[in-house]
Amino acid sequence: MLKLKSPADFIGKQGPGVISFGSGQPDLPPPKEAFDGIDIKRDLRYGLIQGELKLRQMLSHEYPGSTADNFVITNGASEALDLVFRAWGKGKVLLPRPYYYSYLPIIQMAGMTPVFMDLKDGRIDIQDFKKKIRGCRAVLINSPSNPTGRVETIETLKEIEKITRKLGVYVVSDEVYKDLIYERENYHIKGDHVITINSFSKTYCMCGVRVGYLWSADKKVVENVCEMKTHTSMNTNLVGQDMALSTMNAPKEYIEKQRLIWRERRDFIYKELLDLGFDLWKPEGAFYVLPKCKNPRKFLTTLYQDHKVITYLGEWFGAPDRIRLSYALDVKQIEEGLSRMKSAMKKVRAI
Amino acid sequence: MLKLKSPADFIGKQGPGVISFGSGQPDLPPPKEAFDGIDIKRDLRYGLIQGELKLRQMLSHEYPGSTADNFVITNGASEALDLVFRAWGKGKVLLPRPYYYSYLPIIQMAGMTPVFMDLKDGRIDIQDFKKKIRGCRAVLINSPSNPTGRVETIETLKEIEKITRKLGVYVVSDEVYKDLIYERENYHIKGDHVITINSFSKTYCMCGVRVGYLWSADKKVVENVCEMKTHTSMNTNLVGQDMALSTMNAPKEYIEKQRLIWRERRDFIYKELLDLGFDLWKPEGAFYVLPKCKNPRKFLTTLYQDHKVITYLGEWFGAPDRIRLSYALDVKQIEEGLSRMKSAMKKVRAI
Repeated sequence: MLKLKSPADFIGKQGPGVISFGSGQPDLPPPKEAFDGIDIKRDLRYGLIQGELKLRQMLSHEYPGSTADNFVITNGASEALDLVFRAWGKGKVLLPRPYYYSYLPIIQMAGMTPVFMDLKDGRIDIQDFKKKIRGCRAVLINSPSNPTGRVETIETLKEIEKITRKLGVYVVSDEVYKDLIYERENYHIKGDHVITINSFSKTYCMCGVRVGYLWSADKKVVENVCEMKTHTSMNTNLVGQDMALSTMNAPKEYIEKQRLIWRERRDFIYKELLDLGFDLWKPEGAFYVLPKCKNPRKFLTTLYQDHKVITYLGEWFGAPDRIRLSYALDVKQIEEGLSRMKSAMKKVRAI
Repeated sequence: MLKLKSPADFIGKQGPGVISFGSGQPDLPPPKEAFDGIDIKRDLRYGLIQGELKLRQMLSHEYPGSTADNFVITNGASEALDLVFRAWGKGKVLLPRPYYYSYLPIIQMAGMTPVFMDLKDGRIDIQDFKKKIRGCRAVLINSPSNPTGRVETIETLKEIEKITRKLGVYVVSDEVYKDLIYERENYHIKGDHVITINSFSKTYCMCGVRVGYLWSADKKVVENVCEMKTHTSMNTNLVGQDMALSTMNAPKEYIEKQRLIWRERRDFIYKELLDLGFDLWKPEGAFYVLPKCKNPRKFLTTLYQDHKVITYLGEWFGAPDRIRLSYALDVKQIEEGLSRMKSAMKKVRAI
């Protein structure tokens, strides 16, 4: 019997014939630029804790008014988030529920207390935000969101930006899916009170390279994070940083093409799940759907054991009445997976 | 004026003409095997959190009776140490003083309390160890030691091994300099209560690649570390792991040749510092000396500002009456650096 404690229970379980809606990573290849001109026979002594200067300079062009000093290169977005909260070490963090499943342990391990705002139609309810933001050290937002697939409206983002500035509350904005928005351009929340978390993993399909970063206009935040990173991991892998720098030479069309592929998959899975009778939010970014589901544990187990289909419990994301599906699969596989799901629905009441 | 708060104050300050006894990393190149057959165009999706299976299998041959399950591959030894203590989160940790400068922040950030044992002739005083070990969750040892350069006797290591087993206290044994012992082979402390920390950085001269690991026969330790790493950094960079695996094909002579170079430097700097009148322990491993020094701040500042020589304050390592010199430099440079030191000694009373 599956333990069903966390997504880790499914790692390494994807044998032959299994269709996985589990893993939250692109199945597409990185751009060829990721490899162009990379020489692993480089100087392999310690690099700067803050990250390679050239990479930070290149990133600064994407953040108007910034310099290399505003960035710290990290072992993926995960390490950036972990260090930011650890550097604070106490206080309350407001975050939307459902949330990305690492948010809760990261906040709690840092010694901070989570405060939840519930969503309205899959997005932040600004009234609930206003009620709960006072007294918090920070608010953590994630647009586009894993696991909801929703994108906050620019109106909401601007209001959060304004209110937090006024109250002196930090905004930690996890924008790792910023290049996977189907409806509009990303809106980058700005200000001295904003810490942006980002990554090369999703945009450039290189999750295993583990290169992410944080941006902050607050010198103290950058200094504190670097001080901690000196003790906890030192510089981020140098070859990975070279590859990250090189991907930034990929043409804009690379990202545009990816987005079209994701949109086609989104359109397909969204319509099919509706046809199967599921109640779900339409994804506007990233590559997840989070349909409501009755008997989620039983359904998940049947799907996996009888039909070789992996899905994740919404419970792991703070949504016990839902299941999460990643559509990082080609349309043929999505189709086959949903057809198996249809069979499973004859055995377990899922809707 | 220099802040002289931590080694980080010297990072990036090594301009032309500067001789640095600061940085704790080999100046020698990695073996050619580090690059042989490495293809960066590999699958770059997420790898296993625990680390690539082939690398862990290869490592298991170096640890008799082990399997791949006993290892977790980490972002250098730093991350391994950080995760081990974080996974405990409370209790007392016994450690020798002087200590590697990251030990204290790592233990304290984890919510644990350091307890110090003072050294006798630069090595652990087993009587002091016996007095202080009771009630500790773990003892952290580092042989060969950064910053003392001393190697614990096999007798001491065996006694620590035995007493901790009896008391149910964990031993965290940081052995990153295990291949840089001048006097004898490394003695690997063993047992279910032992966690060995190791790295490819020093043995194979690739600090910037950031590949380290921990070994433990305690399943729970491995599980807890992997669970935390899932949230804090995911897998370790995959290209770095490939390079680490490949270095293990380097012939034993590579390590032997390195050791001879280090020994020659050790012999030289040790004799020269004695001739200058310093009181110091003879290094038996690693590449550090920690001479006693009067007026260390003034001496350090004069050395840097008037003579372009970087050294580190012993204070950062828990030894306020000493300074630390790394001899990861060729003999000519060591000679020039010490000649400048001789000049500085005419201005500041150092001995």
